[in-house]
Amino acid sequence: MAATAPAAVLDGIRVLDFSRVFAGPSATQTLGDFGADIIKVEEPHGGDSARTFGVTQEVLERFGVSPSYLALNRNKRSIVLDLKSPAGQETAQRLAEQVDVVIHNFRPGAMQRLNLGYEALTARNPRIIYCEFSAFGQTGPLAHIGANDVALQAHSGLMSITGEPDRPASRCGTSVVDLHGGLAAVAGILAALLHRERTGEGQRVETSLLMSSAHLMSYFYTDYWMTGRVHQRMGTANHLTVPNQVFPSADGHVVIIAPTDDMWQRCAAALDPVLDRPEFKTAFQRRQQRGDVIALMTEATSRLTTRELIDRLGHARVNVASLNDVGQAADDAQLAASDGIFEFESASGPIKSVAPPFSLDKSPASVRCPPPELGADSQAVLGDFGFGAGEWEALKQRGAFG
Amino acid sequence: MAATAPAAVLDGIRVLDFSRVFAGPSATQTLGDFGADIIKVEEPHGGDSARTFGVTQEVLERFGVSPSYLALNRNKRSIVLDLKSPAGQETAQRLAEQVDVVIHNFRPGAMQRLNLGYEALTARNPRIIYCEFSAFGQTGPLAHIGANDVALQAHSGLMSITGEPDRPASRCGTSVVDLHGGLAAVAGILAALLHRERTGEGQRVETSLLMSSAHLMSYFYTDYWMTGRVHQRMGTANHLTVPNQVFPSADGHVVIIAPTDDMWQRCAAALDPVLDRPEFKTAFQRRQQRGDVIALMTEATSRLTTRELIDRLGHARVNVASLNDVGQAADDAQLAASDGIFEFESASGPIKSVAPPFSLDKSPASVRCPPPELGADSQAVLGDFGFGAGEWEALKQRGAFG
Repeated sequence: MAATAPAAVLDGIRVLDFSRVFAGPSATQTLGDFGADIIKVEEPHGGDSARTFGVTQEVLERFGVSPSYLALNRNKRSIVLDLKSPAGQETAQRLAEQVDVVIHNFRPGAMQRLNLGYEALTARNPRIIYCEFSAFGQTGPLAHIGANDVALQAHSGLMSITGEPDRPASRCGTSVVDLHGGLAAVAGILAALLHRERTGEGQRVETSLLMSSAHLMSYFYTDYWMTGRVHQRMGTANHLTVPNQVFPSADGHVVIIAPTDDMWQRCAAALDPVLDRPEFKTAFQRRQQRGDVIALMTEATSRLTTRELIDRLGHARVNVASLNDVGQAADDAQLAASDGIFEFESASGPIKSVAPPFSLDKSPASVRCPPPELGADSQAVLGDFGFGAGEWEALKQRGAFG
Repeated sequence: MAATAPAAVLDGIRVLDFSRVFAGPSATQTLGDFGADIIKVEEPHGGDSARTFGVTQEVLERFGVSPSYLALNRNKRSIVLDLKSPAGQETAQRLAEQVDVVIHNFRPGAMQRLNLGYEALTARNPRIIYCEFSAFGQTGPLAHIGANDVALQAHSGLMSITGEPDRPASRCGTSVVDLHGGLAAVAGILAALLHRERTGEGQRVETSLLMSSAHLMSYFYTDYWMTGRVHQRMGTANHLTVPNQVFPSADGHVVIIAPTDDMWQRCAAALDPVLDRPEFKTAFQRRQQRGDVIALMTEATSRLTTRELIDRLGHARVNVASLNDVGQAADDAQLAASDGIFEFESASGPIKSVAPPFSLDKSPASVRCPPPELGADSQAVLGDFGFGAGEWEALKQRGAFG
């Protein structure tokens, strides 16, 4: 198989991955999907804490690990190192000499204290690409503060614009700041690999939950900086265009979006001729008369079933979608038809996970191995990196592996 | 300045950008930030419709364009082409012969009908990287359906898990599917550039709002596929760890997160010794007794001000953040301290925008030019690509520029 399959774009790239939980692991999973060898370094007592995030006792007994760990850690090898011990640090340094990329999400200063800072590693391996993934960045008044996805959803103002008007703020239901930040790390590392390919030079890549959340909020910030406008929660609607939100159907809900004047004309014709009013003709007018547009549309959509609305608006080339729950979304045929599902075997049977968010037709992603058990590859990895059996034993005696 | 500044990683890379609105433009802005020459191709009548998204009459008079356009289109040049005319298509084809990357977000089949499909362009320029950014992907039962960010928030199940329990679903307040998909396109294009650097071979890169939203929902889907669990809305909380949500203070709100048992111990000690109970000791127990943990914490946090909570928990190294509105978030000192703000001059004065979500220390991002006015660079770009003045005039006569 390997002989005939096209080469993955990151074949031959080795990544030493000190990251934990969601953001860093989602980044290295994508690098691994495209062929990189990901060495996941875990601490001796339980490893990556995401291994047990959100599990019930029943799930833990059945699968031995959390769904979220399995969702974000395929195509990696796991080694256990006690980075608090000098022997563990020495082992990590020797691994870092032979890798292309290091990534971590410890707090600023922690890697330096472990003798694994950028300066220490670059002295041994000048071509190294060193990705620091922090909460609030490496400098500034909040740099020392720990934070996670929800904290940055709150700090960034994202929570303040999520939820219903006149109700409390809600979080965006998934860990969007983590996963967006993970993808930013992927892009930064790929950019640095491209630079190194051309110049031979390694460098430091930085990303943070702060920058990930600010990037997601960028058009709100520019609006505020320009106009002073502080946008608020709008339920399922937004301030950009009308209609662009959930509407009730006779038997459920649909989302209808008609941002351009042409699409609005088709929408009005398909739903109810009463909507085809001169005062709704332009996007600007529809925003100004948001209340009237929504009220009249709601009357029209309430008379039709979800299926009828989707058929009718779909044929009129108006943007329309059904409001799915998590199960309906996961099982929808379009995801499988788009090669959106990566399946692998685990000890408890076949597991399905979501493909990376982009594809390349000549250097494709694939599943080469399932998410590793804690420390499953310690000896194999050290062997690959030239550690002899005697060295392994000596490091073990000195507490490198906890 | 250019002589002494370090080279940006994408210096010399030319991108022909047919994308509109948010997802594609956010991708090409990031490529432009890192040095690529972005040729934004716009239609004759009004150009990118995001130029007027969400603006009031007053904003339009004062700035001439929307804040969201300014937030997502720096470091580009704009040319106007009427792609419905043969002369416009010929012009686009000749530009495509000389670029490294083409990106578009037309519906599947539209570029082929404009004689700008992958096969047509690769015949003229075999090294081309061709990024297709669609709603639901290029094949499958929904491929022909138009959609946008809100549609995919609904389709993916993200909306179903966003909002308060026992209340209607809400959208995530920002265009998260668009912006995440844009970053996926950046990563895909960088990976393809790396592959081309090594092999000389161009290829097709695909991403979609479907894959972007599925990536954001990945751990929910795997959970569902493994256990059948269909997660629901939880306000500001989530199913992964407890506590991990908003709490009331005496004068506002804060987010408090203590995912590990050590951090929980410090949290309990810092807030109120009554929390230090044996039955709350492990993450597993705290999830099982979520209601009790939250009720007791709420009692404790309600007695302290936001400032006191942040100081006290910050010192105890417990993850804590304030719940900011959009203005507080944009103006928070940490964003500026992290070089998170890119400023440029516009016709109406200085404009602030958000930096790309990752940084590279040896091949940095920068602002080279502000977002372009519609068609401002048409003649200059065609000149750079070797079109003579006579050719320009002939193409104009034939309707290439609308």
